[in-house]
Amino acid sequence: MMENKVVLNGTVVADRMKEQLQERVAKLSAQGILPCLATILVGDDPSSETYVRMKGNACKRLGIDSRRIHLEAATTTEELIAVIEQLNADEQVHGILLQHPVPSHIDERAAFEAIAISKDVDGVTTLGFAQNAFGLANFPSCTPAAIIAILDDYELPIEGKHAVVVGRSPILGKPVSLMLLNRNATVTICHSKTEGLANIVGQGDIVVAAVGRPKFIQGSWIKEGAVVLDAGYNPGNVGDVDYEACLTRASAITPVPAGVGPVTIATLLKHTVDAAELTVRA
Amino acid sequence: MMENKVVLNGTVVADRMKEQLQERVAKLSAQGILPCLATILVGDDPSSETYVRMKGNACKRLGIDSRRIHLEAATTTEELIAVIEQLNADEQVHGILLQHPVPSHIDERAAFEAIAISKDVDGVTTLGFAQNAFGLANFPSCTPAAIIAILDDYELPIEGKHAVVVGRSPILGKPVSLMLLNRNATVTICHSKTEGLANIVGQGDIVVAAVGRPKFIQGSWIKEGAVVLDAGYNPGNVGDVDYEACLTRASAITPVPAGVGPVTIATLLKHTVDAAELTVRA
Repeated sequence: MMENKVVLNGTVVADRMKEQLQERVAKLSAQGILPCLATILVGDDPSSETYVRMKGNACKRLGIDSRRIHLEAATTTEELIAVIEQLNADEQVHGILLQHPVPSHIDERAAFEAIAISKDVDGVTTLGFAQNAFGLANFPSCTPAAIIAILDDYELPIEGKHAVVVGRSPILGKPVSLMLLNRNATVTICHSKTEGLANIVGQGDIVVAAVGRPKFIQGSWIKEGAVVLDAGYNPGNVGDVDYEACLTRASAITPVPAGVGPVTIATLLKHTVDAAELTVRA
Repeated sequence: MMENKVVLNGTVVADRMKEQLQERVAKLSAQGILPCLATILVGDDPSSETYVRMKGNACKRLGIDSRRIHLEAATTTEELIAVIEQLNADEQVHGILLQHPVPSHIDERAAFEAIAISKDVDGVTTLGFAQNAFGLANFPSCTPAAIIAILDDYELPIEGKHAVVVGRSPILGKPVSLMLLNRNATVTICHSKTEGLANIVGQGDIVVAAVGRPKFIQGSWIKEGAVVLDAGYNPGNVGDVDYEACLTRASAITPVPAGVGPVTIATLLKHTVDAAELTVRA
């Protein structure tokens, strides 16, 4: 049931997801299968290192194998693709996550495309993106899927609502827009060229912030009673939403940290287990 | 230059596009290459027959080869896919168009997926859709591309405008939304579950009607000065827009017929020529 103000606790949602996974991991284990996520980090970006470590630790706690591949910053696109192809061919590996962003000299799109669709647990390939757009994906991008999971966990309705998504990246703004659309929301996609952003955000029954700019979404923009989901994570543990200011207007809101982030990681684990199960069925 | 009211004449835009194609067809011919579009029609739907015939005739007038494959209504998904695979393998064929819709017992998505990406001149595969969503497609879906071509031909700005798309099909509403987004419009996608549709349409600087319901978009919904694009084509030569009523408010509007339709066909021809040229370069 909804209270007057709901802080959407991602840690609780993630814990519930992981609990459900434990049983599935045990079942796989009984069949001699250890789900395995390979993470690839290129270069030494400290926050990327943190993310990858968090993902690895989350695997470990759930009894999922994780293989961390750390490549030096000077790695070429070709070298990176060769590593990905090895992982594609490796039957022990069920999911592959290439930590975004890679150094700018690398063709990130080409590297993403190299990931086999059956192991694309973060939905970064064009094929995975389109399958998700058509509601046919095994593995939608983790952050968008986490946003939907939070709404569902708190039984916040999507159908018929006006969702305003701020941001249009291939792994966040675009896929979450299409997922909300497929769940029968009316969806408005905004970005840096949007005129009258405050007015448009002010129409959102659901507002998704995915811009990567600290405290960008102002409290005064938010419609009274809106549901606010903050997919941002900026230096200093700050989201894309001015949390305190938005809290006064929103009926429900994700904090940062402990909002979308932990559910994204739980979704990645879930997709890895899904992928492992699919290899059994195949 | 814009007049006070502009009727966006698709026939003129299409003729200009075809004129540019003639030179390219001649060049290919000098190299011994005859661009060829294969159209597949399953069953006896009279309007689908008309569309396919129009496409074939348009090819002929431009010196493009067309191969019409007409399969009986009882064709199975497997038989249809086998035909598509033959066309994929046929070096004489540069583009493949499967006329939508196919009889309901056929898995249309599976059939679309069977089309080789290099011959997917109507952008119906998931891969083609996603490449388009990322701005990387050789062949975006023809009707969405035609809508953009009309805006460009009349020098109607897209960037920063609020585009409202009514309809969310995989070959029209979704791809045109993403194309307008990639051109820096703020995009709202509406559909049958949208609440307050009139108000939302009323915010559109650009309104795209892609619902398949005759005269669905009312004149009273349209913002004064909006640009209205009607991608509908219903029995009796009627679009999805109440043309006369919308004309009083719009600054520019496509009629039906002679609006989006002829530009869609010209785009299909262009993609077929593009595909033929790509085989030369490959």
